[in-house]
Amino acid sequence: MPAPYTLVLLRHGHSEWNEKGLFTGWVDANLTEKGIAEGKRAGELIRDAEIKPDILYTSLLTRAIQTANFALTEADRLWIETKRTWRLNERHYGALQGKDKAATLAEYGPEQFQTWRRSFDVPPPPIDDDDEFSQAHDPRYAGLGPDLPKTEALSNVIDRMLPYWEIEIKPQLRAGRTVLVVAHGNSLRALVKHLDGITDADIAELNLPTGIPLVYKLDENYKPEVRLGEYLDPDAAAAGAAAVAAQGKKAPIDGSDEAPSSPAEHTR
Amino acid sequence: MPAPYTLVLLRHGHSEWNEKGLFTGWVDANLTEKGIAEGKRAGELIRDAEIKPDILYTSLLTRAIQTANFALTEADRLWIETKRTWRLNERHYGALQGKDKAATLAEYGPEQFQTWRRSFDVPPPPIDDDDEFSQAHDPRYAGLGPDLPKTEALSNVIDRMLPYWEIEIKPQLRAGRTVLVVAHGNSLRALVKHLDGITDADIAELNLPTGIPLVYKLDENYKPEVRLGEYLDPDAAAAGAAAVAAQGKKAPIDGSDEAPSSPAEHTR
Repeated sequence: MPAPYTLVLLRHGHSEWNEKGLFTGWVDANLTEKGIAEGKRAGELIRDAEIKPDILYTSLLTRAIQTANFALTEADRLWIETKRTWRLNERHYGALQGKDKAATLAEYGPEQFQTWRRSFDVPPPPIDDDDEFSQAHDPRYAGLGPDLPKTEALSNVIDRMLPYWEIEIKPQLRAGRTVLVVAHGNSLRALVKHLDGITDADIAELNLPTGIPLVYKLDENYKPEVRLGEYLDPDAAAAGAAAVAAQGKKAPIDGSDEAPSSPAEHTR
Repeated sequence: MPAPYTLVLLRHGHSEWNEKGLFTGWVDANLTEKGIAEGKRAGELIRDAEIKPDILYTSLLTRAIQTANFALTEADRLWIETKRTWRLNERHYGALQGKDKAATLAEYGPEQFQTWRRSFDVPPPPIDDDDEFSQAHDPRYAGLGPDLPKTEALSNVIDRMLPYWEIEIKPQLRAGRTVLVVAHGNSLRALVKHLDGITDADIAELNLPTGIPLVYKLDENYKPEVRLGEYLDPDAAAAGAAAVAAQGKKAPIDGSDEAPSSPAEHTR
């Protein structure tokens, strides 16, 4: 039978901290002009594909919220129901937040650096509550108590994201609503890993391009009709993945907070 | 005892249809550059007053949503919980929606024109479902069924807005949360009328300036500590009210969808 549910994933566009080459994580960077353009373009793609999101989920980070707002404005759906949650936030980068990536590589060496970036379950050292890039005193997380992370590996992102998927998002799909999730490289990878049953080892090789809506048609058991979903602009998605892969070859530092992708995984 | 609850009302900024001199109502006009600047300024005022909204309510109309987004971005509160409802929409202007105000005045004469604009409970003629400015086929109202208005007087706005105040907004205040409502001239007048116990006759004389946050401190019975609330920028609010009043003297047509205000009412 045809897949009854539609889920659209969108990774936020380019941010000021991508530009600066800093570990961002839960630090609240703004979109750049390029990031704004990516958000608008995503909205055009959604509109042109005649996809009508009924409900929006975002993280609590400005770069995701702004991306969603620019996209939904273009798609003429700015008025849809909106829910925000820290559970869709980017991976918390611990004590690395606010650090220069190149300087971190030089200080700790390539092996340690790559472990922090690629390991499924080894987080960076925890951030101190008094660190200027800690969220311990950020009012948006005031209600979290001990749930506020001080560092995270991808496994931790999965652990805090999946309950939200189960409790909040799946019932919306079940009710027949088209769901748009605008979030981050790692929170979206966590969701894709779950949907497509990707192993802990293989997920490090998967990367999502920014600003290109990824559409999943799911059957009644939430199983993807097409493995890894379908990008609304496959050529741009392939180019985005290839660009990240090329950066990864040049040096182990790319513009994102995550592992360099294999060029193949999303370049179908 | 000191008032325990904080409620902030914000009327959206200048829209493209204000500029054109058309009856807007539920038609979804965008903000102008001036309206965007008003939204940002409102956010600065909220930030500088150290008011921290915990939850945002908007109508389903883009000009209110955008005003809220610009304001909350400036106030660094874009991440707060967000709820949208048609019950905070502008008054539905019936068959007048999309009509030129000056042409309407010429066609129907000043008495009929002023009745439609100022009467508490006489609505304009209903809009036809096939009218290009009807919302009968607008997806954002698809679930409303017979609740979708075809025209409204202020009394109808009160009737559909007050249940939302009772059921949705008051419990948030009671939970100690600072509530921001970003809406329209008439939906906010409906709320102010209720809060301050203004009579049906007197409400026609009350106008709210655009883009200036109006802060109500409410006691445990939701009674305002200060009658008519307090503007965060009283001088600008007075100037705004005076400007609308001056427009009202020049001609019975001003830039808004509502009755020209008395210059005194909000010029304390």
